[in-house]
Amino acid sequence: MPNALNSPSLRSWIDIRPDNDFPIQNLPFGVFETEERGPRLAVAIGGYVLDLYAASQFGFFEDLTELGDAQPKVFRRRSLNAFLRLGRPAWRAVRQRVSELLRHDEPRLRDHEEAVRECLLRQTEVRMLRPVKPANYTDFYSSIEHATNVGIMFRDPANALLPNWRWLPIGYHGRTSSIVASGTPIRRPSGQRKAPDETVPTFGPSRQLDFELEMAFVVGSGSELGTPVSIEQAEEHIFGLCLFNDWSARDLQSWEYVPLGPFLGKNFGSSVAPWVVTLDALEPFRIAGPVQEPAPLPYLAQRGSHNFDVQLEVALTPEGGAETTISRSNFGLMYWSMAQQLAHHTSNGCNLEAGDLYASGTISGTTPDSLGSMLELAWRGTRPLPLADGSERKFLLDGDTVTMRGHATKDGVRIGFGEVRGTVLPAL
Amino acid sequence: MPNALNSPSLRSWIDIRPDNDFPIQNLPFGVFETEERGPRLAVAIGGYVLDLYAASQFGFFEDLTELGDAQPKVFRRRSLNAFLRLGRPAWRAVRQRVSELLRHDEPRLRDHEEAVRECLLRQTEVRMLRPVKPANYTDFYSSIEHATNVGIMFRDPANALLPNWRWLPIGYHGRTSSIVASGTPIRRPSGQRKAPDETVPTFGPSRQLDFELEMAFVVGSGSELGTPVSIEQAEEHIFGLCLFNDWSARDLQSWEYVPLGPFLGKNFGSSVAPWVVTLDALEPFRIAGPVQEPAPLPYLAQRGSHNFDVQLEVALTPEGGAETTISRSNFGLMYWSMAQQLAHHTSNGCNLEAGDLYASGTISGTTPDSLGSMLELAWRGTRPLPLADGSERKFLLDGDTVTMRGHATKDGVRIGFGEVRGTVLPAL
Repeated sequence: MPNALNSPSLRSWIDIRPDNDFPIQNLPFGVFETEERGPRLAVAIGGYVLDLYAASQFGFFEDLTELGDAQPKVFRRRSLNAFLRLGRPAWRAVRQRVSELLRHDEPRLRDHEEAVRECLLRQTEVRMLRPVKPANYTDFYSSIEHATNVGIMFRDPANALLPNWRWLPIGYHGRTSSIVASGTPIRRPSGQRKAPDETVPTFGPSRQLDFELEMAFVVGSGSELGTPVSIEQAEEHIFGLCLFNDWSARDLQSWEYVPLGPFLGKNFGSSVAPWVVTLDALEPFRIAGPVQEPAPLPYLAQRGSHNFDVQLEVALTPEGGAETTISRSNFGLMYWSMAQQLAHHTSNGCNLEAGDLYASGTISGTTPDSLGSMLELAWRGTRPLPLADGSERKFLLDGDTVTMRGHATKDGVRIGFGEVRGTVLPAL
Repeated sequence: MPNALNSPSLRSWIDIRPDNDFPIQNLPFGVFETEERGPRLAVAIGGYVLDLYAASQFGFFEDLTELGDAQPKVFRRRSLNAFLRLGRPAWRAVRQRVSELLRHDEPRLRDHEEAVRECLLRQTEVRMLRPVKPANYTDFYSSIEHATNVGIMFRDPANALLPNWRWLPIGYHGRTSSIVASGTPIRRPSGQRKAPDETVPTFGPSRQLDFELEMAFVVGSGSELGTPVSIEQAEEHIFGLCLFNDWSARDLQSWEYVPLGPFLGKNFGSSVAPWVVTLDALEPFRIAGPVQEPAPLPYLAQRGSHNFDVQLEVALTPEGGAETTISRSNFGLMYWSMAQQLAHHTSNGCNLEAGDLYASGTISGTTPDSLGSMLELAWRGTRPLPLADGSERKFLLDGDTVTMRGHATKDGVRIGFGEVRGTVLPAL
């Protein structure tokens, strides 16, 4: 079924330009509010959001038995979580119905003037919220290029990758309370930092504020504590993907992180994009990941293609200045796939919950212009990065806006992720 | 006000033995259910739970304006979270009213036969649940004895404490989904482990399953993202404390934890005790912590006494065997106080949420019989620990039950924490 929804021949009665992120083949889910409405669940279509609560009120989902008695209230929530808990048949039924309603040759919504007015709102007229209330958040470290670069800079160039890295998808738990919607300003954190040449630490605003280009996947179907999810079943638990910026304070992080890992260098804020692109919409973009050597242990061994060819870019805009694209990377480069991450995470019996976020870790490419953090782009401050306005950056300055974008393209169809954006505020 | 509730002269009309954990001076909060009722909030008193929903139905809280229009429904929930969000004035008003209702000279409840029957249930007749749905969970590492012991065993006896340890309360984010109620069995996790003499890792059941004796504090009042909580204000956000067992798989942990910290070695399960003892009830037990050298940076500098003199013990019961007390420690030993932990955690702007859990890290004393983990008690397997039944332990065996208990005593008043208990099930 889902594959029919991806067909390049599908067209909508809504006018959508070819470079728009949200053609009828995409239909990502999010949450919006306006002065009068919301919060409400929505699907993006071209320059509009389709208000799922309004559509439900008009009876367009009435016959979808997969929703049980959850509608219309499940569409009038501050997060996707309750909708996710309905399960994959419900997600698919709604996406399929929305695809039908928007198809060029389907009059039910198109010719219903009042319904069109009530259900379709311009994206410029709504405020997008955090799509899920993250139940749990784990950040992985699955780009071999990023892990190698960090190892060279902070440890030992001759042994940049630690012995465990090629055996398991390294990850750590992050903070959910400080995951914010795209557009929320990020306050520069203060904290303890100690340079190698200083004898004692001091407390003050971070001098090494950074971004991390990541993708996060959203778990839709939970699992039971004590019962691992096999690698074959792993993708069945994934609802979709979104852009993710894991802001980092490198000076705080490097002083605090031994032996228990990153903590205050990370948990002052992470930004999540408003639209969750379903795994179903990404089916045409499956590719094989890098060859894994050594071969993964059996519980991590996967068949078929479990990476996704998504082009990513990072732009930096100084306060009042012009935007510079500072990195172009690709999600398809990840050494460890999402299926491997999820199978590993549950291999000890750890349970999944609807609304969990699992971020990839910084996605760095192999060339100097494809690195996913300022730490790497300016190589720990040793190669300042030139911007369009003539200034340069070692790390982020107050007033800088970081914008990440992503899309996959094939056969003339562009499945876009929109953007995740945040501006740095000065420390208190 | 709260101090009057702690007076040793207070007596209840309920008969309570002097060695009971729950005299009228304690009144900890929890959540229970029975076949007929629940989930409902409750306060422990002697061998009973006082059903707060039932008490509310009888009108005993009717005049408490601090509850707004939240009653009675706030008392018929699966967690304390909604009650916590009402704020400290509401928590205090309910505890004060419950203290009044249970006082020996107060007839309102005592002489109301139907209300007594409906409101008081024997603890043996109810099932206690996880007291909070943890919004976020952080585990600290604040016992200098534990950190030193681990440093000696895993790193370098000459430099056991890392350079940052005395400067800040080291901590890391843990997993909330796998935090379970006391009594829930713990499945032995499988995972990757590689002994130093092995060339490649293997996957299988953990051979080094361990417990960790900890206390956790529950945050009642949240804070705003971007705004640190000062050390003077920190305790205002704390609702209370409970016993916590941070089960650990040492072999999984030691292979995975570099460089991002503990992950699958921890997140297969943590056990939380059913009763949260309020900070108000612990006022009489404040003591000074260890002298801190070097002096903490200003944002961590505290005046007055912020440690709490709580005696702790761990017992191990083999399947079908007798219980052996294997450790006696004290929460008052912690190098970093809860106020310091919380001020540090928010110093970068990280926000608190009602229902957050913050665990202390393993609480080890200075003597061999006061260590808070099997790792330390059997010194990484080199000094097997003898049990009452003649067997010995290097790590936990399938069928072992670990029980942790705690109480504070002064002027004849015992403020107890009940117990947190869990039995190890064999790996799948």
